[in-house]
Amino acid sequence: MKKNIGPVNCLYPMPTVLVGADVDGKPSYLPIAHVGIASTKTITLSINKVHYTNRFIIENKTFSVNIPSESMVTETDYCGLVSGKDADKGALFTNFYGKLKTAPMIEQCPLNMECRLIDTVDMGTHDLFIGEVVETYCEEKILVKGVVDYAKIKPILFDKIGRGYWKLGARFADAWDIGKKLKK
Amino acid sequence: MKKNIGPVNCLYPMPTVLVGADVDGKPSYLPIAHVGIASTKTITLSINKVHYTNRFIIENKTFSVNIPSESMVTETDYCGLVSGKDADKGALFTNFYGKLKTAPMIEQCPLNMECRLIDTVDMGTHDLFIGEVVETYCEEKILVKGVVDYAKIKPILFDKIGRGYWKLGARFADAWDIGKKLKK
Repeated sequence: MKKNIGPVNCLYPMPTVLVGADVDGKPSYLPIAHVGIASTKTITLSINKVHYTNRFIIENKTFSVNIPSESMVTETDYCGLVSGKDADKGALFTNFYGKLKTAPMIEQCPLNMECRLIDTVDMGTHDLFIGEVVETYCEEKILVKGVVDYAKIKPILFDKIGRGYWKLGARFADAWDIGKKLKK
Repeated sequence: MKKNIGPVNCLYPMPTVLVGADVDGKPSYLPIAHVGIASTKTITLSINKVHYTNRFIIENKTFSVNIPSESMVTETDYCGLVSGKDADKGALFTNFYGKLKTAPMIEQCPLNMECRLIDTVDMGTHDLFIGEVVETYCEEKILVKGVVDYAKIKPILFDKIGRGYWKLGARFADAWDIGKKLKK
């Protein structure tokens, strides 16, 4: 028998990313875990309209998605506690740019994706930004036989319900494979 | 120095869910990890248009999001290997319904959310379904002081890059808190 807890969004844990945008012409970063995958090459970001960053993503038509490691949890969380209007969040990191000229990325993050904004869905309180990945950058040390290994990234998983950051555990099964044993 | 690996969507790991819909009038389930959070109360699902389930989500205007535990990985993966057109995937589980009459849910999953479809964004190859959570059901045993504990759910995290399922690790920091030490 299940307990009914009301309409609570429990779609967690989600990967925590630092969203990069040029804000007032300078690199700024916002930690977001209300992200998603919209199609093979597209990513969604849900950002409350109270944030200072939104209008710059709309103006620039670009953003970056930087995946921080566990060791960056303090800086990542801090970027959510201060506004880019008041604090120079870009000064916390070594910044670089790629193909798009207004999507700053963080050298210290093991993986970065540059995105071109392709659509914005008005969710009332939030902007749902949909961006197409145009280029991906990663540290050589997170690649195993040319494939990104998330155990080496050590991503920060987020759960809003318990207001916590979690580690990634062990890989335990192959997708599109372990279910074959139920096939008759 | 970073390596440029082309426009690869690396936004993983993501939580694997079983999306429930009445298909041909019967409960059916599709494993999806290309999910997202669109606003506080809304969830996105990216589903390739080749899937049989899509038109029923559109017709019914409802779907459910069921979070399976690690122990259900074989059944979860299997649901992605067969089509609801050919296999009775509802027969694998004990099904129940809530407020919405066409969003079947899985008793064996520790957490279930019933959603009303509020928008569909055409992503070309994929439908991006946006649903509002109207009710959430969970097992008492996953609640600690009334709050959902993801360590007790043992969710299945998915990474398409390495085609793997991963466990959730330990909770290691408090959100909106650990970053305070950088505040001056």
